[in-house]
Amino acid sequence: MEVDEVVCLPRLSRVAVCGGTHGNELSGVYLVRELLKVKKGVMEKEEEQEEEEPLSVLKVLSNPRAMQQCRRYVDTDLNRCFTHIVSLSPSGLTSGTVPYEMIRSRELNAMLGPKGRSGAVDLVCDLHNTTANMGLCLIAYSDCDWICLHIFRHLQRKMPDIPMRYIHFEVSNKESYSLDSVGKHGFAMEIGPQPHGVARSTVYTAMKAGVQHMLDWVCFFNSGTLFEGESVDVFTMIKHIDYPRDSETRNITAAVHPHLQDRDFCPLHPEDPLFQTFSGETLRYKGNEPLYPFFINECAYYEKGIALSLARKRRVVIPTIRVQTEQEQAAHVQELASEEEE
Amino acid sequence: MEVDEVVCLPRLSRVAVCGGTHGNELSGVYLVRELLKVKKGVMEKEEEQEEEEPLSVLKVLSNPRAMQQCRRYVDTDLNRCFTHIVSLSPSGLTSGTVPYEMIRSRELNAMLGPKGRSGAVDLVCDLHNTTANMGLCLIAYSDCDWICLHIFRHLQRKMPDIPMRYIHFEVSNKESYSLDSVGKHGFAMEIGPQPHGVARSTVYTAMKAGVQHMLDWVCFFNSGTLFEGESVDVFTMIKHIDYPRDSETRNITAAVHPHLQDRDFCPLHPEDPLFQTFSGETLRYKGNEPLYPFFINECAYYEKGIALSLARKRRVVIPTIRVQTEQEQAAHVQELASEEEE
Repeated sequence: MEVDEVVCLPRLSRVAVCGGTHGNELSGVYLVRELLKVKKGVMEKEEEQEEEEPLSVLKVLSNPRAMQQCRRYVDTDLNRCFTHIVSLSPSGLTSGTVPYEMIRSRELNAMLGPKGRSGAVDLVCDLHNTTANMGLCLIAYSDCDWICLHIFRHLQRKMPDIPMRYIHFEVSNKESYSLDSVGKHGFAMEIGPQPHGVARSTVYTAMKAGVQHMLDWVCFFNSGTLFEGESVDVFTMIKHIDYPRDSETRNITAAVHPHLQDRDFCPLHPEDPLFQTFSGETLRYKGNEPLYPFFINECAYYEKGIALSLARKRRVVIPTIRVQTEQEQAAHVQELASEEEE
Repeated sequence: MEVDEVVCLPRLSRVAVCGGTHGNELSGVYLVRELLKVKKGVMEKEEEQEEEEPLSVLKVLSNPRAMQQCRRYVDTDLNRCFTHIVSLSPSGLTSGTVPYEMIRSRELNAMLGPKGRSGAVDLVCDLHNTTANMGLCLIAYSDCDWICLHIFRHLQRKMPDIPMRYIHFEVSNKESYSLDSVGKHGFAMEIGPQPHGVARSTVYTAMKAGVQHMLDWVCFFNSGTLFEGESVDVFTMIKHIDYPRDSETRNITAAVHPHLQDRDFCPLHPEDPLFQTFSGETLRYKGNEPLYPFFINECAYYEKGIALSLARKRRVVIPTIRVQTEQEQAAHVQELASEEEE
């Protein structure tokens, strides 16, 4: 047998767990509140075992004002505010006319970033809920972030009873818009179905377990564990489909078809039922190839004009990884510093 | 066999079907929009068959501003604004400081009421959704409104696949607060589970069928059909239970227990699991008698301090009814007129 090449990656010293980025997605709100209470409790057990260089876990309630009003956002969607976060001047953002979430995104960038720089936290795990029947998903911008993909495989193995998928939004680093893009690595942990504004105990428990296993993995990784390469199914987002709408009023005129509702990640074939109009007519999928639907009938996407998203499923081979040795890490830091100077 | 006494009740000439009383409960919003499109369509078939005195069906979008923002309400819950609607002076309600829903409730009272007077519509059917797993419920203030109870039995027979219950809120006519209290008869038709801000096709279809069967029944009744007496299960609301909360912040500290979640109308016994705290502890029901939970984990009731409501189940005997003859009706109208003069 050949020995595969081992990819050596920098230590993950600072991890951020964020909840309430959308103020009405309650699992993350209550989980982060709980983690903030537990100063030296279960979630940081590993930290105490690791005597040198403990793992720093930042627990962040991202959008307190939206949380207080139990709304997704106050002025604008916070999780779309991080695209050009670096190029914005701080001085222009103190007046009362600036959307609250623009100001808050700068605070979060100062806390967890700066995005794209060496000072940023190593990993951002941003907690979300969806009304769609998606189980637990990690959503990331990369299909070659070995840290995110290995964490995903770890969670899949540790939580075999929960349907779990890795969703890849093919967006360049420059165009990435979400809070998790502020970290060196990052993903959204999305769990559903759960109505926004509601906390279901099973969903909360799944999220708590997911976060615990993620932190465990980081500790294993930092302590030198070798993670074997393997292959992983990745769902790459291809396009969105809007609801049928009245051409004048823009009101929707159909709901997701009962045959499609709740069937996230089951292949949708050409001519399969897609919508049922409010007068009872069935509208069919007119695409040319079978694709995998997800975010089917997500509440927050009505206003974004998305009834569902469609993905292509691919198998990605991920390499064996381990943490860099101290020597490798020192060389890496020097390399990064010289890049930033340029 | 003895012939039971037949109760003769006034004709139901004007019926109101209202949607969007809560702007984010979408089944009613889309159903009433659809009914407004169908000027002479399916829903008023009966009207055309009945040559004299056709049934007048008012279709009302109750809270257009809340609908536009896809929120339950703008300033205050419209469906709690109808208690003292009669005693309010119209002149005091034009200034900008008055909550929008207070103004709108007066408009609706002018359109469908006045509440408690002879000019009010005969029947109000107000369409609602809940995040709780309640199936289809009729919610009314009376357990002896034979019209509402016979409509309920008709719907139960016509829609055997949908779990259906009659909920009775024991509140005097004077204290009744909801839009449906404006009609001479009235009920809320509540269907769930459905996240607020989402339209699920199966829920929409059930509501459409429920409204159609209700209108059919009214036409049968008006045309002289005799409806046999029988007995009906009624759930009378006894009390509400709030979430456990932090004594300082008032934030909730537990979710509905997984064993109770989605088990609306299944008996809850003393010592059954009630909540699961966010740290993992089980809290149990400390009542003295088994009761029937409903509105379990309803999204909109977090702010009202209600995690679930509890009901007692009773069997109510409803009499045989038929519409009054023209002579009986004339006598009845005279009676009402002299009552109002007093």
